[in-house]
Amino acid sequence: MNDNRTELEKLGEFGLIKHLTQYFKIHHPSTIKGVGDDAAILEVSQGDQVVVTTDMLVEGVHFDLMYVPLKHLGYKSIVVNLSDVFAMNATPKQVTVSIAVSNRFSLEAIEELYAGIKKACEWYEVDLVGGDTTSSTSGLIISVTAIGFAKPEKIATRSGARVNDLVVVTGDLGGAYMGLQILEREKEVFRSAPGAQPNLTGYDYVLERQLKPEARKDIVQLLAQMDVKPTSMIDISDGLSSELMHLADQSFVGCDIYEEKIPIAPETIAAAKEFNLDYTTAALNGGEEYELLFTIKQSDFEKIQGNPNFSVIGHITDESSGCRMITKAGEAIALKAQGWNALKPGEMY
Amino acid sequence: MNDNRTELEKLGEFGLIKHLTQYFKIHHPSTIKGVGDDAAILEVSQGDQVVVTTDMLVEGVHFDLMYVPLKHLGYKSIVVNLSDVFAMNATPKQVTVSIAVSNRFSLEAIEELYAGIKKACEWYEVDLVGGDTTSSTSGLIISVTAIGFAKPEKIATRSGARVNDLVVVTGDLGGAYMGLQILEREKEVFRSAPGAQPNLTGYDYVLERQLKPEARKDIVQLLAQMDVKPTSMIDISDGLSSELMHLADQSFVGCDIYEEKIPIAPETIAAAKEFNLDYTTAALNGGEEYELLFTIKQSDFEKIQGNPNFSVIGHITDESSGCRMITKAGEAIALKAQGWNALKPGEMY
Repeated sequence: MNDNRTELEKLGEFGLIKHLTQYFKIHHPSTIKGVGDDAAILEVSQGDQVVVTTDMLVEGVHFDLMYVPLKHLGYKSIVVNLSDVFAMNATPKQVTVSIAVSNRFSLEAIEELYAGIKKACEWYEVDLVGGDTTSSTSGLIISVTAIGFAKPEKIATRSGARVNDLVVVTGDLGGAYMGLQILEREKEVFRSAPGAQPNLTGYDYVLERQLKPEARKDIVQLLAQMDVKPTSMIDISDGLSSELMHLADQSFVGCDIYEEKIPIAPETIAAAKEFNLDYTTAALNGGEEYELLFTIKQSDFEKIQGNPNFSVIGHITDESSGCRMITKAGEAIALKAQGWNALKPGEMY
Repeated sequence: MNDNRTELEKLGEFGLIKHLTQYFKIHHPSTIKGVGDDAAILEVSQGDQVVVTTDMLVEGVHFDLMYVPLKHLGYKSIVVNLSDVFAMNATPKQVTVSIAVSNRFSLEAIEELYAGIKKACEWYEVDLVGGDTTSSTSGLIISVTAIGFAKPEKIATRSGARVNDLVVVTGDLGGAYMGLQILEREKEVFRSAPGAQPNLTGYDYVLERQLKPEARKDIVQLLAQMDVKPTSMIDISDGLSSELMHLADQSFVGCDIYEEKIPIAPETIAAAKEFNLDYTTAALNGGEEYELLFTIKQSDFEKIQGNPNFSVIGHITDESSGCRMITKAGEAIALKAQGWNALKPGEMY
């Protein structure tokens, strides 16, 4: 962190945009014009469709700057949007970023935020093509729109799951949620004893899942290489349970998943035990994973079998069966959408 | 206004999006999928390029709910973005709308906002294809992204103005600024004597310019019909002076405009006199007009001559001459960018 403090107003709106975006590189020749005109201009490859998604992150609702470094926040603000593009089985190419900041933030703080945004743009090879900077009366708000492209026959929506399709999830679940529990605990410790050093050693994995999540760019590439087209797909931003119900709702089907098949990292299990939390619950209801949940035809099973990126956790059933989890004890219980409600006041995550 | 009050949290995030967007119609067959998946899916006509623009409106910075009805605000939030698409000489087809709202707002209030958004989507024939709703710790923030299309040979950027091109402006200027002065005056009256009825009669024209501005959809169509392709174009959101300087900067040219040629409505002149303000200054520096400023080749002059939508206000000069206004007294004065700085704290508009 830089200790200097430059007031944002010194640069003015246009000066600030110029200053923040000057070192961003353009990766795609299809970005004809980026920042600096009334609108960006993008070229579309023949036959491609465009996918568009947008997300807004609000201080005090989606993030707490007491423990989220601004650089990580900038990175994450891009990741959450790209994840939605990947969840369409498409490739993101451009983003716009708008921010509203109160004068509590210095130029140096906003530079940190943009350093994270830049890092994500480089890693995911997306071009920053526009945005807006404005002041806010309180706090920081980040609004990102991501634009991606895909051939129509490749695009996977939420509505294509069919009875007997297999339900597949990438990576492992519940880690981001446990990371948050640790951050919240250390925040309480700090509050009751300011100056106390946070005890974060040994929790690297779950903390990284929370603070520096990655979107599954690799999966979209891998599925293309394996010649697997998901029949439906969604990203896990609000918890496995909630996302499964979205897929089932929009495909007019039900699903059975098996508790023992849900992939959970040993670090997540250890952290859950420490907090006396059920790790399956963390995996079902903890959000912000940015893993992909998708369905495939049974005939594609052999193609993904044995690949450590994928866990087959169940199958699609008839709509009348609803969404169920078969517990380790063999009991079938109805899944509930307990995803995070961003409209419930006073609740953080 | 509806007097009932339903708390937003009652619906939850997904319920709220569904509720607010259920009556929006899709106008374009190219909108393959709108609200309801991880991302929207859009089809692009062969040979079209995509233009993308985004703007954020923040309560207490860009609008004051004491005198801006929510329905007008919703309408305007779409208009300001579409104006940027028209300023590329392109046709907007889709928008995404994200809002952050504090629990001070009821469902009924947000319905009013969306009624305005819907009205604008219908008038301008654009499809609402996505967005985000979340809570905020204070106030209302609206972030809109607009997507438009045009053949590359039609697109007008800020950088194409050449020496001797004519400088043209649509409509008339300064009205929105005078409308704001009247609203601010009546707000002060109300503050010092609550219950006093605002005196707004006789100011319809300038109030409408401020409260219900329209983007110049008609101009893009008219230019196409007249077979005029602007060499450069920008919309006037920060005042004529500031926008002229952007065009000149990005085209590496200068310009001379003539004070007597700047179109100003009689109602704007009357209001300026009442406030002891110079109406030329209002036209030069008052923003939020959403008129279009563009340059054309001299050979296109005959095509637009006599059309009441257009005023030729000057011509492009060499870069070394800078941007100047020739006053009615024949004096050449350098233009200054006094556009509104959204980052200067404590200043409204």
